[in-house]
Amino acid sequence: MGTGQSSSSPVVGVDLGGTKISAAVVSRAGKILGRARKRTKAHLGAAEVLARISLAVRQAAEDAETPMAKVAAVGIGAPGPLDPSSGVLLSAPNLPGWHDVPLAREISEALGIPVYVENDVNLGTLSEHVLGAGRGTKDMVGVFVGTGVGGGLILDGRLRSGARHAAGEIGHMVVAAGGPYCGCGRQGCLEAVASRTAMERDLRAGIAAGRESLLPELAGPRLKRLTSSVLARAWKGGCPLTREVVGRAQWYLGLHAASIVNLLDPEMLVYGGGMTEAMGEEFLAPIREVALQHLMPKDSAPIRLAAAKLGDDAGVLGAALLAQQRSTTE
Amino acid sequence: MGTGQSSSSPVVGVDLGGTKISAAVVSRAGKILGRARKRTKAHLGAAEVLARISLAVRQAAEDAETPMAKVAAVGIGAPGPLDPSSGVLLSAPNLPGWHDVPLAREISEALGIPVYVENDVNLGTLSEHVLGAGRGTKDMVGVFVGTGVGGGLILDGRLRSGARHAAGEIGHMVVAAGGPYCGCGRQGCLEAVASRTAMERDLRAGIAAGRESLLPELAGPRLKRLTSSVLARAWKGGCPLTREVVGRAQWYLGLHAASIVNLLDPEMLVYGGGMTEAMGEEFLAPIREVALQHLMPKDSAPIRLAAAKLGDDAGVLGAALLAQQRSTTE
Repeated sequence: MGTGQSSSSPVVGVDLGGTKISAAVVSRAGKILGRARKRTKAHLGAAEVLARISLAVRQAAEDAETPMAKVAAVGIGAPGPLDPSSGVLLSAPNLPGWHDVPLAREISEALGIPVYVENDVNLGTLSEHVLGAGRGTKDMVGVFVGTGVGGGLILDGRLRSGARHAAGEIGHMVVAAGGPYCGCGRQGCLEAVASRTAMERDLRAGIAAGRESLLPELAGPRLKRLTSSVLARAWKGGCPLTREVVGRAQWYLGLHAASIVNLLDPEMLVYGGGMTEAMGEEFLAPIREVALQHLMPKDSAPIRLAAAKLGDDAGVLGAALLAQQRSTTE
Repeated sequence: MGTGQSSSSPVVGVDLGGTKISAAVVSRAGKILGRARKRTKAHLGAAEVLARISLAVRQAAEDAETPMAKVAAVGIGAPGPLDPSSGVLLSAPNLPGWHDVPLAREISEALGIPVYVENDVNLGTLSEHVLGAGRGTKDMVGVFVGTGVGGGLILDGRLRSGARHAAGEIGHMVVAAGGPYCGCGRQGCLEAVASRTAMERDLRAGIAAGRESLLPELAGPRLKRLTSSVLARAWKGGCPLTREVVGRAQWYLGLHAASIVNLLDPEMLVYGGGMTEAMGEEFLAPIREVALQHLMPKDSAPIRLAAAKLGDDAGVLGAALLAQQRSTTE
């Protein structure tokens, strides 16, 4: 540990997304002391994005009135696949041209402090486990429904990385063998039937075929903004097409939840992402109902399905927890 | 530990099935020193079956020329659901009328030594991990395809029981949402599309509809004995219906394997049960091929799918390992 730092020194958590970089200085108790946010500008190339990450960390430290010398470590959540032990980002769907970028080493050299990297959805799961909806559980699975469906696993209190650092790709569990094609090129993945992208595909097809819907009114005639909150408003307004399409996604999510429970038997599943944030318990209740119907054995105790609590902060808080955990154990 | 026993004392493993009880005296090194086998005679009631279990243990000890006083502990693998911590069998599909039977306590009182109970498929997985195909792995999933589809999980070197003692019910992961009905009452479970029972359903329907098949010749006109080995012979003989039906089951098993890997990312999946034993690598190869096509991320290292090695002994060996592990840690 460098000069000026102690075991109570704050850390900085960074959430590296395809459109924005969020950074937050976080106390050991999990309190956010300062923030910064910058556009990613991925089209300018890796070197520019790396510089913007370092800048975001410095600005967050300034916002928290914390000298950089007092920051113990930086954690970065990035879209995978990546290697958490070396801190190398192998590739990233949202960061075109990124291949084998030594993210941890580059930022560590720029800032002069230890940097740790982990999959962003894993970190969202970690923060919900330590600070959010999953507090107090030993085993928890995070399910994030948005453009895709991502997830993370906490087993026996620890984030599971897996033999090839590939655990938690729950959006590519197959629930509808031979079903709709997925962005990954295969058929019937959960993501192909239950992500917002999948719902959007079905909603557009329905509207193109003349089905009754509130969506043209809410999202404009070309349906430009079929965001989670627009879907939530259509659902609340009773749009028959939206009710059908969202309901089907919820059914698949319920079957998927049951599959996870029948395999792993965790204490809790925590749901986050745009759809859960926009619809809340109304998104979760039908998923829970289907899942509980499909648990084995039939007369066993139910398990808990709950909404995530940390919202947008799950990413930076999870990255900060990573920095805390790894800087004290390595 | 009682008189006459030491840390090198052998243990007895018992495999309690619906039709037979197998017992084996097993050395600390995993060598079988003596055996006994008895019919279960479940129709005579729980008290009679309990007496037959104790008798099988005593006969195995006699066969091994090991005095009962030298036996350190007994492990019993039983069909679930059961509570491994209390040793109570909650119910058992193959043992009619068994409800809340304190199996561990009853046998322990009859024999005067510690008795431990665990799910039989979990124990098959444990023995393959310690002594069979999964030796040397840290994480392994066992998949047993027979009348049903059962499984077990080894994570970080330990058998996973789960928050409700229900982990490993992999036959009830949903792979074909809305598909064929399962014995559990729901639709599209792996067991409903890939167990021998599911294959048998489809084969009988095909033959009833006049499809070309070698099965009437191999299994008799009423298809009385559609066992795994009959299916294997029809498959090897090129029976077009059998190739189609077994091939479809293999495809579902491949998708299921990929789902498990995309969630958990273990090092290895080990396949056992009647179909694997009868067809060997010919059963496994298509499953492996489909699974590897569906791994995330696409360019990641492949994982291993291998055939179980211990055959019928997996049950008694797993039960003996349970007795070894729990009698030295409790």
